[in-house]
Order: sequence, then structure tokens, then C-alpha cells
Amino acid sequence: MGECPHIKLCDRQKNTNVRLSLPAVCIVWQTAMIILFGVFIRYNEESDAHWIEHRKAKNISSDIENDFYFRYPSFQDVHVMIFVGFGFLMTFLKRYSFGAVGFNFLIAAFGLQWALLMQGWFHSLDYTDGKIKIGIENLINADFCVAGCLIAYGAVLGKVSPVQLLVLTLFGITLFAVEEYIILNLIHARDAGGSMVIHTFGGYYGLAISWMLYRPNLDQSSRLQGSVYHSDVFAMIGTLFLWMFWPSFNSAITDHGDGQHRAAINTYLALASTVLTTMAVSSLFQKHGKLDMVHIQNSTLAGGVAVGTAAEFMLMPYGSLIVGFCCGIVSTLGYIYLTPFMEKHLKIQDTCGIHNLHAMPGVIGGIVGAITAAAATESVYGPEGLINTFDFVGDFKDMVPTQQGGHQAAGICVAICFGVGGGIIVGCILRLPIWGDPADDNCFDDEPYWELPDDEESIPPVLQYNNHMRNKDV
Amino acid sequence: MGECPHIKLCDRQKNTNVRLSLPAVCIVWQTAMIILFGVFIRYNEESDAHWIEHRKAKNISSDIENDFYFRYPSFQDVHVMIFVGFGFLMTFLKRYSFGAVGFNFLIAAFGLQWALLMQGWFHSLDYTDGKIKIGIENLINADFCVAGCLIAYGAVLGKVSPVQLLVLTLFGITLFAVEEYIILNLIHARDAGGSMVIHTFGGYYGLAISWMLYRPNLDQSSRLQGSVYHSDVFAMIGTLFLWMFWPSFNSAITDHGDGQHRAAINTYLALASTVLTTMAVSSLFQKHGKLDMVHIQNSTLAGGVAVGTAAEFMLMPYGSLIVGFCCGIVSTLGYIYLTPFMEKHLKIQDTCGIHNLHAMPGVIGGIVGAITAAAATESVYGPEGLINTFDFVGDFKDMVPTQQGGHQAAGICVAICFGVGGGIIVGCILRLPIWGDPADDNCFDDEPYWELPDDEESIPPVLQYNNHMRNKDV
Amino acid sequence: MGECPHIKLCDRQKNTNVRLSLPAVCIVWQTAMIILFGVFIRYNEESDAHWIEHRKAKNISSDIENDFYFRYPSFQDVHVMIFVGFGFLMTFLKRYSFGAVGFNFLIAAFGLQWALLMQGWFHSLDYTDGKIKIGIENLINADFCVAGCLIAYGAVLGKVSPVQLLVLTLFGITLFAVEEYIILNLIHARDAGGSMVIHTFGGYYGLAISWMLYRPNLDQSSRLQGSVYHSDVFAMIGTLFLWMFWPSFNSAITDHGDGQHRAAINTYLALASTVLTTMAVSSLFQKHGKLDMVHIQNSTLAGGVAVGTAAEFMLMPYGSLIVGFCCGIVSTLGYIYLTPFMEKHLKIQDTCGIHNLHAMPGVIGGIVGAITAAAATESVYGPEGLINTFDFVGDFKDMVPTQQGGHQAAGICVAICFGVGGGIIVGCILRLPIWGDPADDNCFDDEPYWELPDDEESIPPVLQYNNHMRNKDV
Repeated sequence: MGECPHIKLCDRQKNTNVRLSLPAVCIVWQTAMIILFGVFIRYNEESDAHWIEHRKAKNISSDIENDFYFRYPSFQDVHVMIFVGFGFLMTFLKRYSFGAVGFNFLIAAFGLQWALLMQGWFHSLDYTDGKIKIGIENLINADFCVAGCLIAYGAVLGKVSPVQLLVLTLFGITLFAVEEYIILNLIHARDAGGSMVIHTFGGYYGLAISWMLYRPNLDQSSRLQGSVYHSDVFAMIGTLFLWMFWPSFNSAITDHGDGQHRAAINTYLALASTVLTTMAVSSLFQKHGKLDMVHIQNSTLAGGVAVGTAAEFMLMPYGSLIVGFCCGIVSTLGYIYLTPFMEKHLKIQDTCGIHNLHAMPGVIGGIVGAITAAAATESVYGPEGLINTFDFVGDFKDMVPTQQGGHQAAGICVAICFGVGGGIIVGCILRLPIWGDPADDNCFDDEPYWELPDDEESIPPVLQYNNHMRNKDV
Repeated sequence: MGECPHIKLCDRQKNTNVRLSLPAVCIVWQTAMIILFGVFIRYNEESDAHWIEHRKAKNISSDIENDFYFRYPSFQDVHVMIFVGFGFLMTFLKRYSFGAVGFNFLIAAFGLQWALLMQGWFHSLDYTDGKIKIGIENLINADFCVAGCLIAYGAVLGKVSPVQLLVLTLFGITLFAVEEYIILNLIHARDAGGSMVIHTFGGYYGLAISWMLYRPNLDQSSRLQGSVYHSDVFAMIGTLFLWMFWPSFNSAITDHGDGQHRAAINTYLALASTVLTTMAVSSLFQKHGKLDMVHIQNSTLAGGVAVGTAAEFMLMPYGSLIVGFCCGIVSTLGYIYLTPFMEKHLKIQDTCGIHNLHAMPGVIGGIVGAITAAAATESVYGPEGLINTFDFVGDFKDMVPTQQGGHQAAGICVAICFGVGGGIIVGCILRLPIWGDPADDNCFDDEPYWELPDDEESIPPVLQYNNHMRNKDV
Repeated sequence: MGECPHIKLCDRQKNTNVRLSLPAVCIVWQTAMIILFGVFIRYNEESDAHWIEHRKAKNISSDIENDFYFRYPSFQDVHVMIFVGFGFLMTFLKRYSFGAVGFNFLIAAFGLQWALLMQGWFHSLDYTDGKIKIGIENLINADFCVAGCLIAYGAVLGKVSPVQLLVLTLFGITLFAVEEYIILNLIHARDAGGSMVIHTFGGYYGLAISWMLYRPNLDQSSRLQGSVYHSDVFAMIGTLFLWMFWPSFNSAITDHGDGQHRAAINTYLALASTVLTTMAVSSLFQKHGKLDMVHIQNSTLAGGVAVGTAAEFMLMPYGSLIVGFCCGIVSTLGYIYLTPFMEKHLKIQDTCGIHNLHAMPGVIGGIVGAITAAAATESVYGPEGLINTFDFVGDFKDMVPTQQGGHQAAGICVAICFGVGGGIIVGCILRLPIWGDPADDNCFDDEPYWELPDDEESIPPVLQYNNHMRNKDV
């Protein structure tokens, strides 16, 4: 502790006061959202009060045919994943739980509004009146879009200010919408669960930003980089809600009927398989075979990422198990070997290990999707099923599965490029000395941005005792 | 600490032993419920085993047309809000988490039974046989009714005994059912998400009770009025489940089809907007721009309250954002200025700040609903949509939107009157010295009503050390 | 503390290193799953890409008729119960939260795969091609099957190694599938919510194993057998998610339409009633009327167990309340009197009190089901409703309700026999000294199987201070 106070004095000169910048950004951007929504966003025909007339005109027999009833349960599950899943997964640090849950809440709430606009312009623009028409599927897609930015947050957790996170989100959503349009519409790749579009992009976006924001003296915060017993339990809330609702994530926007049904089954199976191999590898590579909570909290989810693209295809139940099996191993090994390597040699400080949970499994998922698509046959899918599943209609009505496999592979490359390229550019912006980020010895700490309760119990008591004695001496 | 033991001895003379009263009330009331259910409550035609015949008679083509499938997902979300949402939101106090979650559980479980009866007599009585016929919509309404009492609990959190809470609930449900009947059926106001019926009523009911139970020496418990680090994280579980599932709350009992669809979208947007302005105001009004967990836990929800009435109307997406925008600001400012003012000058001790989270946003929601209704036009809603949305049928088939706006405004007044009036009367009853409430220096403490684990770690260690030393001296 | 170190040295000779056995079992069993899934498991016609052709052939008018939309919301709720509900319910111990949530996660993830196979062979085998065809209902049933093993885990919580748990699960699932086939198909008992099949079986299975694994010196771990304040709050997360989603559990696989609708209502009511009587008895039997968290966490759920069988019958709302009323009392008294008695005199150490939460209420539920079935009449159910509800078709088309009552009673006996018998056999296997279970003074501790954070705050500070002083003296 001898030199500690000195270092602190120097370092704390870094100004983390966001009293002007944070309110300004929130108010101005929210006002902009209101104006843009006023100009552009309207209800679509299923959420508009004219639905009843529209329904009769289209001879739809029942209100239950409204897309709301196909997708609302999945939407709510996805919503839980975004706010509780991602939020609590990141509470594992001993003194950054407020930041984990709170900033996750902030950037997701902003991001989903901006995503409705960005994705709306690309996908839901009604050319007759120039308005974006939204319904339940748009809400799900907005949540998806936000997920990409929350993944990126995982890489920089504890090292950035809330204003930086809002900037990261603004650009992240923008890049996402463009990348998604290219991959899904121009390249015509399928990616229901977003292995490429969400996880690969979000993962590399976050890693590139983390690389740009490299902090050589981050070990000054090492006292705060671990967990405490109860913060690990809180993180398991996040893990489990992500794990349980992932079948809804991957099936939320797939085709009605068998598409949603199959995507849920495949994801359920892949995730189950991942749990076993994660536990196996975690135990095998630790001293005395003890399990490591970091692996259980994160790698158990890799199967859900990796089955994202192929979940709606005829991957077969055993295929899902195989994907999950491999990803549990790869992801856990990533935590054991790759994360330390990347920090030491590549100058990428990845707080939550998103490379192991999102980037790698995302790429694997893209590859699995490409192979599964290329191997599709009419005998397995049925003639109509093949067209339906791969959407071989309109401009793409002459495509064949092998071609589709190629397009899928192209999609992976686009996602990586957007992630890395976008991350480097946004990282440059975030290096400007105006955002109020914490000093190196002040990372992973809620103290700079949150009023903390007067909570002596969470300071290790021996230290407290020391302080107490010291004060008495004085 | 010198005079503390003395005060405690005096104060603890107040008898908090509920060993007879609590079991007696629980058993007797539950028995009464069984008898009343036996006399009055039966399944409705959609939950009765005769459904299959009824379905054929009515030419309903499929089981999926059963109201169960329209509303069950929303019902479960509402159920989570009631038990986990409200329960955990109140765990923020450092030593009142058992009481927060546990008493919330108790009064909600009792309240929903009593609500099924009270609301049933008003709304679901089958005059052919004098029975109340219940289905999924009744369960949702019962949960809604309970919400009003749980809001009131927030105002008196930590200051009352479980028996008092049961009394508060018994009368609260009764008043709610009457008030709801007047507002929805007699006045013919619309209030799908209960801005008026639930939040305005529940808020003022709780505040009036708190005013009647004013404790001038409550500062004797001030050591327990704050949070600790992990209790704030627990409270965020409540916040997030309320926030995420609020779209289900506001859409749970709206019209099938576009009604549910639109209500979910509007609520989703209003809540997103609230998060940003809450963060902005919280940061702006604190020293060094630090965020305050009390605001994040509560004010972020104000948009959901305020959009309750108008969620099913054609409020437009930007309209929802504006409502959320304003409520985040109003509610956070309420925590900063109004709550201390009310405690000091109006003798209203509002533990959870329900005035800022429910009462004010509820009134705002009522006003927004009145304006939106008055401004409705056939061109926006379509001829059938207008009739459908505002239920201009039967006795009300000649109503026009501007009239409806007036009726909505009348609804707000009724809700406030029932809340304040009912709260004063019930407060009088709760002042009787027979309920086992805690002494002023024993508030916000689980100790009087719960067996506590032998849990040294949650006592601030320095105190412990002191105690330890003192014991050694002896 | 004087003799403690000595005992520890002796006892810790028991080898809890699972570094080879746990990975080996996980990898080998998961590989076996992949092979068996490859050979046996395919999508059913509702999750297969041929669905669209199948739909047209069967003249199904809409995708919404896919069973996915009838059952997916309930499935997700059940999924939450299995992973968050059971997992967090067991986190109440002060130092076994990782094991509670983590091992629950592990065995559920393995169990559901094995259950898909075992139940598939009995119920979903397509004899035309020898394949098991799975859809959403199979996933729900697999989760149900897993629940039986998780119940058993509750009895041995803290006293077994993860490898033992996997063995317990392997045999548990196998026994479950056979028992279920006998009860549902051969005996033709109805058991939608699994009072007999899941809770009675799982309860006695766990108790018999616990009896076989009796530890006479378990009091050496008594310091770890209690809870701490926050671990009790974590456990309430489990309690509430079980409590809230139990209506989905009991209605998840009942008949479409009124069957699901009625099961949800009955369960909702029974659980509400249980809360009140649990609180009453808990308060009445404690000193000063203080509530005991153990009762609130567990006994409040007994009503859901006990209404499992009869939930889909015309139990009537008041019938549900009566069942819940009785079970709250019986279960809480069980915790107060039976659990200590069983530990002392029957050598059954039941960590979570599953006898009170699952075994007894399960048997009560079976009896309630038998009585309700025997009392069924055509006037109450309607002619078609009676046939539908009790499935009086095919080989059983001549059955009458009184007969059905007898069959239900036979089902209870089969469940108990399988539970006790299976538990004894599996208990024998688990006594082999090869599984790496903890020593008597090392139970209820995460330390043997988990890397623990360096977390001084969760050691009682006074001890810490003592250690600190002692170290200084040296």
C-alpha cells in the first residue's frame, strides 16, 4: 500500500465528471429520436387501428393471425435477454455491478430507438408515404441490433464512461444496420439467430475498440478485476436467463410454423450439449479439477451463438448437439489460453471474454450455416420447404443450395470486416480526451459514475480494520 | 452510540409479536375465501370442460381461438411483475429484504383471491345462476387489482406489520373494485394499463395511509434507511422485470389484434425514452454528475405508468416517446425535491417514493389519455377502429371522442378521490394500537417479524470489531 | 476450534478431486448422446421442413395451428422453473450457491437429452422408420423428467460430488421414463402436472438415496448448514419463479383449449391459498411469531405440487383453494416436526426438505386426483368433455370415472415403489468409494469443487479479525 496513495493522486487527475456531457447527450439524442420518430415512424397495418378493416379485406379469419400472437412470447424472452441477461452477466466484477446493469440499461434503451429508425429505413420503409411502419417484428429486430452493441460493451466493461458507451452504441447500431442490409438483402444470406450479423459483428467491433483503447497500466486496477462470492451468483442470473431464452432468440424472427418450431428445438439441444463440454474442459484444465465460474457463466452459452444461423435449417437434432459440443470446448479453451494471450501479445483487453463467447462461436456459427445450407436437398426439405426456408423467391428464385452456401460464407466476411473496421474507426473517436473515461487505477469501479451506498461490509474487513487502526493512531 | 441502548429499551416495549394475530387473520380470511369461492366462483365457458361443445355450437374453428392463447403469455409476464417486480424493487433497504419480498408475496396472494370475488361481482357475474365465471382475463385483472395495493405498500414499507398490510389489502381491493367499476363502467373511461385505476388510486391510497401513520421520530431508524451495495443490485432485478414486462401489463387486457399489438409498442417506446431522461436528470442534479441508484431503480419505470391509459389509443410512436421523455424528468425531479419536501412539510413519509413513480405519472397518464381520446378522429382510427377502440357500443354508441375525453378526465378525479379518501379511512383503522407495528427505532428492520440467519457479515465490520473489543473488556 | 485442525487433516484425506472423472463422464456421455441422437432422433411433422406440405394435406388453415403456438409460452416458463427455479431455490446455503446453481445446470442439461431418448422410445417412436420424432411437447416432457432428478438433488444437496449427481440423473431419468410409461400408458392414469410421476417419484427417489448415503458425522459441517441474509434473498428468486410459473407447469401438456385454461386457473388458486396457510403456521410455531424463511421459500410451493394431477379436472376453484390450504399447513408442519424426526430417527438427512415440498404434497396430489376423477360426472364435464378430459378412447373407451379413480390410486403406488426401490439401488451404487464425494466436515461447501473468489467479506469478520491477530502474534 506504500506507493498507492501517490499513484492515486496522479491518476485521479483524469476527470470522470460527466455531469454536463451525460445529461447533454441523453437529452439531445432523445429529442432527436422524438423528432425523427415524428417524421418517420408509424404503426404497420397489424398494429394500426385500421387492422380490423384490413383483416376483413384480406379475408383473415381471426385476430389470432395477427403477427403479434406468433412473435410476442419470443419478443418478451428476447427483451429479458437484453436487459437482465446481458446486464446481469456483467455483474460478476466485485465493484462494477451498478455500471454493468445500469449502463447496459442506458445504452440498450437508447439503442433500440435508433435501431428502429436505422433498420426501418432499410427494411420497413413504405415507399407510398415515406414512412417506416413498425410492428412486433421490428421491436425484436431492434433488440437484436442492440445485442450487437451490448456484446461490444462486454469487451470494454469497466474501462469506459457512459458517454463513450452511448457513442459506441450510436455508431454500432448504424454499422449494424448497414452490415445487416448487405448480408441479408444484398448477399441474401440467411441468419435468423444472428451468428454472423449480431455475434461476429458485435464481437469484433468490441475487440477492435478494446484494442484501440488499450491501457498498458490496467494492472493498477487489478484489485477490482475479480469477483466476490455473491457477484458471481448475480452473474449466474444473467447466464441462466440468456441460456434459457436463447431458443426464443434464435426462433423469434424465423418463418411461422415449422421454422420457429425447429429453431427452438435446435437451440435447446445445442445449448444443453455445450454445458457438458464446458464443465468437462473447465474441470480438466484447473488444478484439482475445480470448476471455474467464469467458464460456467460464459462458455455454456457458446452453443446458442454457434447455432444461430443454422437453427432454422434442417440441422438435425444430432447436428445441434455436435455444434454445441465443439463450442463448449473451443470457448472454454479460449478463456484459458486465448484471452491471456490476446491481452499480453495483441494488446486486446477483453474484460468479459467476448472473443470466446461471441466472436469465435459466431464465426463457427456462420460456417455451420454455410455448410448446412450448401448441403440442403429437396428430399430433406421438401420442394416447398426448401424454397420457404431459404427464401428462394423473387430475384433469388433460381438459386440452389450450394450457391446459398457460398453466399453464407460471404456473409461471415462482411460481418468480420464491418466489426473490425468499424471498431477501429469508433475506437479512434473514443480515444479523444473529452469523454470522461476513468484512469487506469480507477477502472472496474462504480465509484466514478455512481453514488455508492455507505456500505462498509463490501470492503474486505481486514483492510477496514487496518484503516480503523490507522485512523486511531492519528 | 452512548444513549442508544437506553432508547432501544424504551422503544422495544412496543409489541411486535404477531404470533396470534397473523395466523388468525391468515387462517380466517383464507377460510372465508374458500367459502365465498364455493358459493360464487365457477369456470367460465372457455375454461369449463363444456368448452368443446360450446366451441362447436358457436362455430369456433379451433382451440387456438380460446382467450387463453390470446392472453396467457401476457398474464405470466404480469404475474412476474407482481411477485418478482414489486417484491424485488422494494429489497433496496439494507435490512428489509425479507419483509419486502415476503410481505409482498403474502398480500399479493391474499389480494388476488379477494380481487377475483370483488371484481367478479362487478364484472363477471352470470345473472342466470348468480355465479362469477372466471377465465384468464379475470386472473389478469386480479393481478392488476393487487398491484394497486402493492403500490400502497411502497409508501409504508418498513413501518407496518404484516397484519396491517393484510388490512390495507382487504380494504384496498374493495375500494379498487368499486372505483374501477365507476370509472370503467359508469363513467365509461378507457384505462387498459390502469394509469388512473391502478397507479393514481394506488399511489394516493398509499400516500394518504402514510400520512395518517406519520412517525415524527422515524429518524431513530435512519441507520437502516439506506441500501447496501448488493441490496441495490437485488432491487435492479425488480426494476428490470417491471420495465421489461410493462408492455405486457399495458396490453394484457386490451382488444385482441391491433389493440394488444399497439399497446405493447407504445409502452416499449415510452419506457425506452424514460431511461434516457432519468439518467440525464439524475446525473445533472448530483454532485460530480454521479448517478443515483434510487432514480435508476424507480424513475425509469414512470413512462410505463404514464402511457397506461393511452397505450391502446393511436398515441403514435413519437407520442409515446414524448410521454416517456417528460415522465423521466418529472419523476426524477420528484425524488430530488418533492419527496424530502413532502416528508418535511406535509408529514408524508414515502419510503419508496411512490408519489414520483406512481401517483404523479398516473395522473399524467390520465391526462394524456384524455387528450388522446378527445383528439381521436375517424380518419386516424377508421370507422370500425374508432368504435372498437373506444367501445362506442350499447348505451355509449352515440358518444364522440371529445365527450370521451371529458369522461377520461372525470376518471382521474374519481381515482384521486378514492385514493385519498380511502387512504384516510384505512389509515385511521391502521392507527389502532392492536396491529403489532414496529417502534420508531425498529423500522426498516426484518428483525421484528423474521427469524434472521446468524449472519455476522452483514453488520458493518467496524461496529463488530467495536463490539468484540467491548466484550473483551468485560 | 481447538481440535478442528486435527479432524480436518484426517477427513480431508477423502479425495474430492474430480479432475479425471468429471470430464470423462461429461465427454463420454455427451458423445453417446450425439450418437444415439444421430441414430434415433428426428424432427416431428410440425417441426420438419415438410410441415407446409403436411399442413396443406391435412387441411390445416393456418400456421398458428402448429402445436408450437399452443405450448411454447408454457415451455419457456417450465424451462425457467428448471434452471432458475430449482437452481436458485437451493442457493440458500451460505457457501453452496455455486454448487446449487451450477450442478443443477449440469445435471439438467444432461438429463434433458437423456430424457428425450428414454421418453421418446416409450412415447414418440415412429414405427414406420424406427425414429423418435420430437417437437415442442417432447421438450416440455424432457424438462419434466429432469425435474424429478432435481427434486432428488434437493435431498442430497451439499453432500455429493458432481459425478454422483450425473449418475443419480442417468438412473433417475431411466427409472422415470419406465415409471411414467407404466402410470400413464399401462395403468392409464392422468397426471398432467406430475404430482405422482414427477413429485412423488422424485421425492422418494431422493429420500431413499439420502438414506443410503447417511452420514452420521454430518454435524461436523454444521457451521455451513445455515443461510446468510443475502443467500436467503437469492433463494427467494428461485421460490418466486417456481411459484409464478407453476400454472404453466401444470398446464403445459394438458389438452388444447379448456384443458390448459383450467389447469392454469386451478394452479394459480391453489398456490395463492398455500401462501396464507404457510405464513400462518410458520408464525404460529415460532417464538414471538417470527416467520421462518425456510418455510416461505419452500412450503408456499406445496399447493402447486398437490394440484398437479387434478389441475386439468373440474376440481372447481374452491377445490383448488382447499388443496392449497391443506398443503401449506402439512408442508410447514413437516419442516417443523418431520424433518428433524427423520434425521434423528430414520437416518434420512434431507437438506432441502423435499419430503415436505415434493413427496408428501405429491402423494396428496395423487389422492386428490383419484378422488376428483372418481367423482367426475357427465353433467359436470359434458359428454364430450368427459371423454376428452380422461381420454376415454381406444382401449379405454369403456372406462367410467370410478374406475379411473382406482387407476389413479394405483399410479400413486407405482410412483412410490419406483422412487423408494430405485433410490435404494442407486444409493448402493453411489456408496462406492470412487465418486469423489466430500468428507463429513467438508459438506455444504463449494470449496472442494469450485475455484472460489478471494472473497474475504463472506468470512465472518470476527473470525477474520481473530486470524489477523493470530498472524500478527506469530
